[in-house]
Amino acid sequence: MPAPTVPTDLERWLASNDQRIHDELFEFLRIPSVSARTEHNPDTLAAAHWLERKLAAIGFTAETIPTPGHPVVLGEWRRAPAGAPTVLVYGHYDVQPPEPLELWTTPAFEPTIRDGKLFARGSVDDKGQLWIHVKALEAHLATRGTLPCNVILLAEGEEEVGSEHLAAFIKGHAERLACDAVVISDSSMFAPGIPSILSSLRGLAYFEINVVGPSSDLHSGMYGGAVVNPAMALAHILSTFHDKKGRIAIKGFYDKVLPFPKAVLAGMKKLPFSDTRFKKDVGVKTLGGEAGKTTLEKLWTRPTLEVNGMLSGYTGEGAKTVLPAKAMAKVSCRLVPDQDPKVIERLLKAHVKKVAPAGVTVTVEALHGGHPWRADLAGKIFDAASRALHAAFGRAPIIQGEGGSIPVVVDFQKILKVPVLLVGFGLPGENAHAPDEWILVDNFRRGLRAIATLWDEYTK
Amino acid sequence: MPAPTVPTDLERWLASNDQRIHDELFEFLRIPSVSARTEHNPDTLAAAHWLERKLAAIGFTAETIPTPGHPVVLGEWRRAPAGAPTVLVYGHYDVQPPEPLELWTTPAFEPTIRDGKLFARGSVDDKGQLWIHVKALEAHLATRGTLPCNVILLAEGEEEVGSEHLAAFIKGHAERLACDAVVISDSSMFAPGIPSILSSLRGLAYFEINVVGPSSDLHSGMYGGAVVNPAMALAHILSTFHDKKGRIAIKGFYDKVLPFPKAVLAGMKKLPFSDTRFKKDVGVKTLGGEAGKTTLEKLWTRPTLEVNGMLSGYTGEGAKTVLPAKAMAKVSCRLVPDQDPKVIERLLKAHVKKVAPAGVTVTVEALHGGHPWRADLAGKIFDAASRALHAAFGRAPIIQGEGGSIPVVVDFQKILKVPVLLVGFGLPGENAHAPDEWILVDNFRRGLRAIATLWDEYTK
Repeated sequence: MPAPTVPTDLERWLASNDQRIHDELFEFLRIPSVSARTEHNPDTLAAAHWLERKLAAIGFTAETIPTPGHPVVLGEWRRAPAGAPTVLVYGHYDVQPPEPLELWTTPAFEPTIRDGKLFARGSVDDKGQLWIHVKALEAHLATRGTLPCNVILLAEGEEEVGSEHLAAFIKGHAERLACDAVVISDSSMFAPGIPSILSSLRGLAYFEINVVGPSSDLHSGMYGGAVVNPAMALAHILSTFHDKKGRIAIKGFYDKVLPFPKAVLAGMKKLPFSDTRFKKDVGVKTLGGEAGKTTLEKLWTRPTLEVNGMLSGYTGEGAKTVLPAKAMAKVSCRLVPDQDPKVIERLLKAHVKKVAPAGVTVTVEALHGGHPWRADLAGKIFDAASRALHAAFGRAPIIQGEGGSIPVVVDFQKILKVPVLLVGFGLPGENAHAPDEWILVDNFRRGLRAIATLWDEYTK
Repeated sequence: MPAPTVPTDLERWLASNDQRIHDELFEFLRIPSVSARTEHNPDTLAAAHWLERKLAAIGFTAETIPTPGHPVVLGEWRRAPAGAPTVLVYGHYDVQPPEPLELWTTPAFEPTIRDGKLFARGSVDDKGQLWIHVKALEAHLATRGTLPCNVILLAEGEEEVGSEHLAAFIKGHAERLACDAVVISDSSMFAPGIPSILSSLRGLAYFEINVVGPSSDLHSGMYGGAVVNPAMALAHILSTFHDKKGRIAIKGFYDKVLPFPKAVLAGMKKLPFSDTRFKKDVGVKTLGGEAGKTTLEKLWTRPTLEVNGMLSGYTGEGAKTVLPAKAMAKVSCRLVPDQDPKVIERLLKAHVKKVAPAGVTVTVEALHGGHPWRADLAGKIFDAASRALHAAFGRAPIIQGEGGSIPVVVDFQKILKVPVLLVGFGLPGENAHAPDEWILVDNFRRGLRAIATLWDEYTK
């Protein structure tokens, strides 16, 4: 088979509309649709309506459908030839909170290009990647007046707060959302120039631990030494979560962990990955985690437990001699097949109960969870993606795992019972949830071409 | 010896001037002399000048002496008969910030009497207690035209911000401040109706620990499991500070701890103290600290290590899947004789260095420190205080320790080389550094009588 190429008509249209495509993306990125903050609810809604209008403008029927949380934007184009397949493209229009604001080089909601990177909150996660799909569809409709397959585009506004209402939405609209494959671009490539298809995602079980001691903050001199300090109690609890070898010391935690397919593990070892480079990117001299595992194994195939946040007592400038009344930690586990977030919740709660010292009250609240996922790496949509990526990036994609979680992937697969293709255009170091989030402009352009090509390849 | 009594002339004068004494105190309390806030600098200076005028009005020579910070008010009366001793009375005219304002029942700087308590910022800490001394001196001078001893009254304006310039002031004026004893009323009685003399104060060594890992916050999914988490590292460090018996596990920490005098420990056991009541006051069901020690032993005679504050990563509402770049804790030790804050700093730093995991950079900064203090409970000034308190409160005082720190006590003792008497009229629960600070009106009245009597007893 000859090396696949981007169809000439689509390539020409994308090249000549490049500036407009960027300008519109900038508009999208300027809307601070921070789903976690109720004060941004009007912005989040504005982003939904903006997207709905853009879908209508390219020839889709589009509507913004309310949920008990942020709405779903649903675009549909169903005029493909009889017998053509239907694909569902999923993305999200909400973004992470931008804080800490002072660490952004340029403002989070003022998109700026520097050194070939487009910086903005949402640039890669996920507005930029969602925009790739919208504009790839427009390329087809604008040049040919048609698409080779029926397309449903579903964009939610709650991905960054756990997609609370999405599963119910999919279930409630299962007939309307019926399709042959789901395509999602909300992930990263393995490395610059190396297009990637995801083979697995880790699941998530996120908790808040609250430790309450005395009924109010106490003077540490007048009371210190006789009252159990909630911050010390919390530190003790957190310190019991790992053993000395970096393994999670919660009883039963690893019971349901399946071994990864040998072929995937073998492929992993061949990838051009360097610990030295990884350390440099992250800014550390020594790596951590489970003894005896490679970094990619740790990131893609092993479950974790991390502290995401911690707060107690006086944290301002200088010294305040307070014995805090309470302490809080946010703690989350990444899960791998077949760990279940509900089971992990039960195990973690039992562990905390066992190690919590007397003299304080400890509560554990599950904030949200998602199942881990593993792709079925055979079938039409994967073959098509492989060729489309090859066409846009000049080389065949690699298969990679992913340490993060996209809980909706499991929902789509379970409810719609179709394969899910995860193909993303971010890059390591993109700061998806940190200040100075970026997407490589070149990846955005190649992503557009890859996705535009995908629909041709899928229906060949 | 018959039970001591308040001299009739002083009693009569105090009774007939009661209203004026209260009115003047109200004036003093209305000045918001918050030393921590530069916007209150004019008020802090106004409080100094107000006090200077009042000292002049009772017959003292008085001046407001500048320091690099807030000024010292120095009053002197040196016309006692030849051979009479000289005493130095210390107090402070600055107060804690009043925030949070909304938690005050009546405004912080509008003194109000309710249920026999005088509520105002500074009512007990320390304007009210300083005023006891000024008016007790006036009682002598107004009734007899003289005092039985020479008196230096030194009031500083930086006690609530660490008395930064006081030690230098005492050193720089050591000759002028030469005396036979120092008397300080800036503490509390053991319980209502039980006058108290302080036998000890704990010292302080306050630190900030910073743990730095990756160069920015990371996505906990994409990096979690392979990068050392600074919050987990900090929790681990904090968890190593105590052993299972509640003892501090820093090597050498207890080396310089002197055993407390047996008589003091025995006296402590006889005090009307109830763990049940203490637990109820604090709002906990179980107490903590060193196994095998009573609560009063823990609070007064044993060193501590407490976490005062802790901050890392995401601490807002909901879930954010971040692997924090850094984590911070404020940690402080209360010290007992002969522990030295500088030595404790060295030991704590060595401990942290030993237990800090690889993959993060840990720094420990000493924020401030103060030496512990133990009273020499024999000698003329203590005997006199014992009788004067008996006269005013109808019972002999108890000897009590104090868990908090008053660093200036050590400065006076070291520089002037004289005994320091700590006799205070506050009460547990007085909210010295919190909203609704109060002093019991009855304690204020009895305190006036005790201190007025003290000068007679001291020179008998």
